[in-house]
Amino acid sequence: MDIQTAITFCLEMIGTVAFAASGAMVGAGCSMDIFGVCVLGVVTAVGGGIIRDIVLGILPPTVFLNSKYALAAVITSCLVFFAYYMKKMEPGQHSSQAFERILLIMDSIGLGIFTVMGVNTGIRQGYGSNVFLLVFVGTITGVGGGLLRDMMAGVPPYIFVRHIYACASIVGAIVCVWMQQFGAVWAMVVGSCVVVLIRYLAAHYRWNLPKLPR
Amino acid sequence: MDIQTAITFCLEMIGTVAFAASGAMVGAGCSMDIFGVCVLGVVTAVGGGIIRDIVLGILPPTVFLNSKYALAAVITSCLVFFAYYMKKMEPGQHSSQAFERILLIMDSIGLGIFTVMGVNTGIRQGYGSNVFLLVFVGTITGVGGGLLRDMMAGVPPYIFVRHIYACASIVGAIVCVWMQQFGAVWAMVVGSCVVVLIRYLAAHYRWNLPKLPR
Amino acid sequence: MDIQTAITFCLEMIGTVAFAASGAMVGAGCSMDIFGVCVLGVVTAVGGGIIRDIVLGILPPTVFLNSKYALAAVITSCLVFFAYYMKKMEPGQHSSQAFERILLIMDSIGLGIFTVMGVNTGIRQGYGSNVFLLVFVGTITGVGGGLLRDMMAGVPPYIFVRHIYACASIVGAIVCVWMQQFGAVWAMVVGSCVVVLIRYLAAHYRWNLPKLPR
Repeated sequence: MDIQTAITFCLEMIGTVAFAASGAMVGAGCSMDIFGVCVLGVVTAVGGGIIRDIVLGILPPTVFLNSKYALAAVITSCLVFFAYYMKKMEPGQHSSQAFERILLIMDSIGLGIFTVMGVNTGIRQGYGSNVFLLVFVGTITGVGGGLLRDMMAGVPPYIFVRHIYACASIVGAIVCVWMQQFGAVWAMVVGSCVVVLIRYLAAHYRWNLPKLPR
Repeated sequence: MDIQTAITFCLEMIGTVAFAASGAMVGAGCSMDIFGVCVLGVVTAVGGGIIRDIVLGILPPTVFLNSKYALAAVITSCLVFFAYYMKKMEPGQHSSQAFERILLIMDSIGLGIFTVMGVNTGIRQGYGSNVFLLVFVGTITGVGGGLLRDMMAGVPPYIFVRHIYACASIVGAIVCVWMQQFGAVWAMVVGSCVVVLIRYLAAHYRWNLPKLPR
Repeated sequence: MDIQTAITFCLEMIGTVAFAASGAMVGAGCSMDIFGVCVLGVVTAVGGGIIRDIVLGILPPTVFLNSKYALAAVITSCLVFFAYYMKKMEPGQHSSQAFERILLIMDSIGLGIFTVMGVNTGIRQGYGSNVFLLVFVGTITGVGGGLLRDMMAGVPPYIFVRHIYACASIVGAIVCVWMQQFGAVWAMVVGSCVVVLIRYLAAHYRWNLPKLPR
């Protein structure tokens, strides 16, 4: 396994675990049973990649041919479920602020990594010269999992209500495409850092896009 | 038409009618007009198969090339609509328990048959040795239609709130894959019976998976 | 560019702008920020075409290879956003009836054009003899964008609650298929006019399909 393959694998695994945790947390927050929590975790973790593969014509999607990612998502979801289960047993421990913070971090990491993975897959499929397609595919891969998570859990999609959510993904995808000239590994690392940074700063300083008054 | 093709066709038709009836019942329960009831019936009946075919790269999906299934779903939906229409005309006949029971039976039969159909299609496409893909595809085919139905009708998806819903589908898919050694027909029949049985017992005895306290 | 290509392009552009405007209006009506308004506009404008291309196996979907349509949708959405922004600044100008009327017109035009575009794409892909597939693909292309819009915005889908919505699309698709014998351009123009006419008359005279009493 060469260095690029190894880094790609590590990043994908981290992104999978982070997104699975975010999905499982949303599910646990809705008082779902353990199966619902796992489904939501898996859908969040692999949903973006499945949409990307369908769009690029990679059928069946990679995730179905390689059970490692789904397995990692299931294990992560079960751990999240039991962490909640333990915590809820002790009364007076409902700290929804800590919940929001961890969810934000997990979701940001997943968003960053999956955005550059989407760009990367597009390049590997031979669309390296179509910047528009690459950015679109990167953004879909990044926001797809979270969008499915929110639609299935019946909560208002992050993408519409959160600060600068998909913008961060788009900017990161553009950076990742532009950085290809410095090598694929650098493009992936810098691209995903840009996403996480924008997303985190936006949430922390409560940056807002222009909004219509009610 | 050999015996396997005939049994496959019969099972698929029964599953289509059962799922169409479940979709139409949900639509009628939401006071939709006749068109909405038909759309929901058709989506429930063919939705899982379309998702499966997209995932397996069978494009256009089989259901579009063969109008028999969509036609059966439309006729079933119309019959359900008129049954409701007749019944609502007589006052004092709202038996929501009977409704729940018939919906449960229809949904269970559809779930069972579509799960094994999904596994079967995966094998026919040449993925017979990839157990993970087969189980995934079987489960998606089984739960996909009902999930689309609930999302479109704006009711909380069965898969998240019902007892052991998707678990039944997963177990049935595994049984169906394992039974292939005894012949495809047996695998289909036993696999779908296992799904219906688990689903029915779970609903009847109110089996529950561990759930987080509110 | 021959005459058919030119007319196809013009119709597609008009449909894209109309659907983008309808999506952006729904987003603005939900007090989304500018990005949410753009996403909803783009999804409404290109969603139906993406579903159609996936179903027909045209991967990646055409819209990803040609940024003109997405760009037109983004510009339209921004214009809608600023129109709302200006208007909301002046108090006492909330005319929800005008809103409903413009939304209806935009949605009708988009529905009509995208229906015939769907039929057209199906014929170009070589399914000219499969009437069932052509009508299905035309209807999906027509109603897909609006369905995604309503599901993402969390409002009850038009297709289930509005008068004769998808029926208009189905009738238009059938007319468009039947008119192919008189040439593709005529089929497109007449087909989309039929959709707009049925949809408009249905809304104006409040035609209703049989509905279940509550």
